[in-house]
Amino acid sequence: IYGVFYKFQPIDLIRKYFGEKIGLYFAWLGLYTEFLIPSSVVGVIVFFYGCITIESDIPSKEMCDQHNAFTMCPLCDKFCDYWNLSSACATARASHLFDNPATVFFSIFMALWATMFLEQWKRLQMRLSYFWDLTGLEEEEEHPRPEYETKLIQKKLKTKNTTENANEVRCDFPLMFELINVYICLQIMLTFSAVFGVMVYRITTAAALSFSTNETTRSNVRVTVTATAVIINLVVILILDEIYGAVAKWLTEIEVPKTEKSFEERLILKAFLLKFVNSYAPIFYVAFFKGRFVGRPGHYLYVFDGYRMEECAPGGCLMELCIQLSIIMLGKQLIQNNLFEIGIPKLKKLFRKLKDERTEPKEINTNQSKDPQQWDLDYSLEPFTGLTPEYMEMIIQFGFVTLFVASFPLAPLFALLNNIIEVRLDAKKFVTELRRPDTVRAKDIGIWYNILSGIGKLSVIINAFVISVTSDFIPRLMYQYAYSQNGTMHGFINHTLSYFNVSHLKAGTQPENSPFAQDVLFCRFKDYREPPWSQNPYEFSRQYWAVLSARLAFVILFQNLVMFLSVLVDWMIPDIPKDISEQIKKEKSVLVDFFLKEEHEKLKLIESFITRDKHRPQNGTKATWSLFHSGVLCF
Amino acid sequence: IYGVFYKFQPIDLIRKYFGEKIGLYFAWLGLYTEFLIPSSVVGVIVFFYGCITIESDIPSKEMCDQHNAFTMCPLCDKFCDYWNLSSACATARASHLFDNPATVFFSIFMALWATMFLEQWKRLQMRLSYFWDLTGLEEEEEHPRPEYETKLIQKKLKTKNTTENANEVRCDFPLMFELINVYICLQIMLTFSAVFGVMVYRITTAAALSFSTNETTRSNVRVTVTATAVIINLVVILILDEIYGAVAKWLTEIEVPKTEKSFEERLILKAFLLKFVNSYAPIFYVAFFKGRFVGRPGHYLYVFDGYRMEECAPGGCLMELCIQLSIIMLGKQLIQNNLFEIGIPKLKKLFRKLKDERTEPKEINTNQSKDPQQWDLDYSLEPFTGLTPEYMEMIIQFGFVTLFVASFPLAPLFALLNNIIEVRLDAKKFVTELRRPDTVRAKDIGIWYNILSGIGKLSVIINAFVISVTSDFIPRLMYQYAYSQNGTMHGFINHTLSYFNVSHLKAGTQPENSPFAQDVLFCRFKDYREPPWSQNPYEFSRQYWAVLSARLAFVILFQNLVMFLSVLVDWMIPDIPKDISEQIKKEKSVLVDFFLKEEHEKLKLIESFITRDKHRPQNGTKATWSLFHSGVLCF
Repeated sequence: IYGVFYKFQPIDLIRKYFGEKIGLYFAWLGLYTEFLIPSSVVGVIVFFYGCITIESDIPSKEMCDQHNAFTMCPLCDKFCDYWNLSSACATARASHLFDNPATVFFSIFMALWATMFLEQWKRLQMRLSYFWDLTGLEEEEEHPRPEYETKLIQKKLKTKNTTENANEVRCDFPLMFELINVYICLQIMLTFSAVFGVMVYRITTAAALSFSTNETTRSNVRVTVTATAVIINLVVILILDEIYGAVAKWLTEIEVPKTEKSFEERLILKAFLLKFVNSYAPIFYVAFFKGRFVGRPGHYLYVFDGYRMEECAPGGCLMELCIQLSIIMLGKQLIQNNLFEIGIPKLKKLFRKLKDERTEPKEINTNQSKDPQQWDLDYSLEPFTGLTPEYMEMIIQFGFVTLFVASFPLAPLFALLNNIIEVRLDAKKFVTELRRPDTVRAKDIGIWYNILSGIGKLSVIINAFVISVTSDFIPRLMYQYAYSQNGTMHGFINHTLSYFNVSHLKAGTQPENSPFAQDVLFCRFKDYREPPWSQNPYEFSRQYWAVLSARLAFVILFQNLVMFLSVLVDWMIPDIPKDISEQIKKEKSVLVDFFLKEEHEKLKLIESFITRDKHRPQNGTKATWSLFHSGVLCF
Repeated sequence: IYGVFYKFQPIDLIRKYFGEKIGLYFAWLGLYTEFLIPSSVVGVIVFFYGCITIESDIPSKEMCDQHNAFTMCPLCDKFCDYWNLSSACATARASHLFDNPATVFFSIFMALWATMFLEQWKRLQMRLSYFWDLTGLEEEEEHPRPEYETKLIQKKLKTKNTTENANEVRCDFPLMFELINVYICLQIMLTFSAVFGVMVYRITTAAALSFSTNETTRSNVRVTVTATAVIINLVVILILDEIYGAVAKWLTEIEVPKTEKSFEERLILKAFLLKFVNSYAPIFYVAFFKGRFVGRPGHYLYVFDGYRMEECAPGGCLMELCIQLSIIMLGKQLIQNNLFEIGIPKLKKLFRKLKDERTEPKEINTNQSKDPQQWDLDYSLEPFTGLTPEYMEMIIQFGFVTLFVASFPLAPLFALLNNIIEVRLDAKKFVTELRRPDTVRAKDIGIWYNILSGIGKLSVIINAFVISVTSDFIPRLMYQYAYSQNGTMHGFINHTLSYFNVSHLKAGTQPENSPFAQDVLFCRFKDYREPPWSQNPYEFSRQYWAVLSARLAFVILFQNLVMFLSVLVDWMIPDIPKDISEQIKKEKSVLVDFFLKEEHEKLKLIESFITRDKHRPQNGTKATWSLFHSGVLCF
């Protein structure tokens, strides 16, 4: 499989063998993968830009400079000591890789990329539906699902018993609908509580590990906690994903939608909502909530008794967001690809074989054919369960690529690598491991298009917030152009750190065994607050509000600029390729000409008969003429 | 005309007489006018809410309270005196009429109203195109305009002379295109300079009038200046509007577009751009720029030597925006309706008559018919010049109704009153005063729909900014929930006024003949700045930045909320009415059935001939069968 990644997909053959619906899926997947190539190239360039400029980045240099010696406030009560900012040098340097001006450019690029992709897909869809003769395909009157009819009959019977008019019975269950919505909300709450649980785990474990007397344990607290927490997150996501798939199906079955199509749409919407929240909740938490509600030294916020809210690493939350994103994305892809798409089917196959072998001995006597027929072999394959899981996987990946791309420019690259394998894996699965599905005609990819365009729109505002709120981009700009003495970034770190008078620490929260507790008068913490010697100590300073204004102004500017550009792109690329629209026009005129000619010939034929029958009584001519006219009027 | 305003329009008759294009215009105008009814009702309610709550509004009460006695800094250098804030009581009370929380609700309502209107128009258009048999109407191959062909031939001749290949000649003039863009930019600059000119007029006149020794002149400076300036603005807009119409036409003719349709589209786009900027530039100036660059006492911004930038009235810029908006909107409508749509055509008619009469005496001898024939009467009418000016007028009005609705909730009412007359006026004009236009088929209102939807989108962001930046809504909210001692609005006025030490006034700018100059130590001005006794006197205070953050946060919230709701509305209302789509489906199946039957009958007829001719050599049967098949395959 892996050897043919560079070849084009035989879309037309796929369509002939599997039908239009699966053909469209592979065409979509192909286009998406193709579009990932430029974006991953740009992403890699942006990443390398970060790597190259890391040496000239003044803030991270200042942070690593031992001479500056910023004494930071302790990270936990009692057991943590004051610490020097230069010890967080490594994370600061790493975070520059993702937190640089090129990222802003990249997220604008990716927003336009998403618009462009959707536009191109519309064109490709048009082209395919032309070549596959789907242009005239109308939604056919769909038959109600058998489950729906059963339900209807049951209800009719019930109402007959209660002697009501059976004609008025209609299959809408408002109460049921409410219940389903409540249930979905409950499931979403489950996701949130899982995220909260992981947060509590992180806080408590970090606290527990800092009590430890072992020196190496204590120095690696953050790494250990972050790594284990992300893995727990990943496992929770994977488990909940499977559960939510089943839940969505179950809920939709309860709803008893009328037709197969509406069943599919409702199922997709529910499953998407649940899986989307599930996959992104921990990432949203890290991006927008983590480290924002810590309070300040002397007035920390406590989750439970004695446990402080968690802070971001000194390099900024963006670094943590990046780690979270990359591990969840990669882990999800690797595990879902290898385990769920290859492993589980293989296991199931093995299991079925074993079961068959156990039951076979009895049948072998009655059935003499030793060479298994093709249908026997096909029967041993897995049944086809629809395209929904395949699309869902890709859409969630599309979300990873677009929603938080500002914090992880390598996401498109990883998505590309995954998809190159995924295309062939899916193809192999469809061809060799699943029973051949019934061919279904479809004009488009249906509700998935709406979901994709929704994600595209959401990504603009999320990226705007990631850049302005999570990253340090705006404070740096503000410092350089408003607060800096000489227009350079020198002194930025000092500017972002507030002072705290250690004598204001609450009793019992001072560091216990601090070797230099006597020398420390002020410790520093990352926030814009008034210094202890001002009139309103520890209140948010003017800088805080000025930076906040700048952040929000950036969000407005970014969002409206990108939306405007998207509308422009949407407007400039016509939905129907020019050659196709011309072809359609030409064919139409050819068809009209042809039909006129045909009708003419038919008429001539009839007339020739009539001429021959001239001497007989004529009763057919008038009818023929009316036929001819109605035939022409058809156009 | 005016007596039939409550009657429905005879759309079908209009369509029969004038053709689909004009029929669609009147249908659109009718729907728009209908939609204005609910919005003007809500607008009036919002206005009355302002009227009722005016007594209980604490800030305006405080402003009118003589006991508070805020001594304000002088409004101009040297000649103006210190003044008491309570003298601006009337404007403060008036501005509450438009600057209250109901306005926020109303502008959300209007944004959704615009979306709903566009959706309903889509549905109505669908319905009309169904009943008018336009569903199958394809864009026909349009013929090039004669002007285009002439140009092409000229160019071909030229290139032949220079012995180049004539086939390669295509009619694109990149240089010309550039020139046109430059010219449009120049025209827009002209508008801006007109706005700037009016601003300068306002500043200088205000200054000149304050020198005046006449007491009554001086006390009415603001009223006189505002009124005259708005009228100048209005006159400039009306004149430039006519000029821009001609300019757009001229530029499009220079461009030599290929077809009549592209000519119309380009003309509309250009004319719209120019007229839009022309109509709204002064309003934009008042809403977002006026009074924002005044500087502060002791450090004013000067336009020219000695002329300070103009400030808004003490009641806030919203009041002035409202005055500007209402006068321009009403003036434009009244003058354009009465003068341009009734007066000028009447004058032209009179002029033609006079001219005819002068030339008639000679012809009266040769021409004996005394009763003028219908064609003679029709010839004396004005020629039809297209729908563009009619649409343009309505679209600009739609802009007034949606773009700045947050500052003037009565706009929909005035638009409604105008349109009730406008519909009949247009109808009368089309029927009795213009020559009957050539009927043109059209499937939709074309580019106007895009412009409308563009205005709808723009209105969301503009309203967000009007509410958050121009009105005092956010500062009031902030005061009530963040700064107020007891959660009420008491003390709000005091909070918004900064202190200024009069001894810091620059030499030569102090009030000259001030009766109480000796008693005044501090004067107040409206801004959030540090008091003179702080460390950084007159710098923006923390409150300034906090309020700015709140304003920007409101913009983000408002914009995204309204956009989300619009998408929801768009999604919930299907584009094609259900009954129409079912009708279309049914008709299609009936048509297919009918055709199958017809073909069958035709075949039978032919077969009957053939059966009768059985003994003769058969050569027609095969052909007939193939005809039958091709006939069936058509579906």
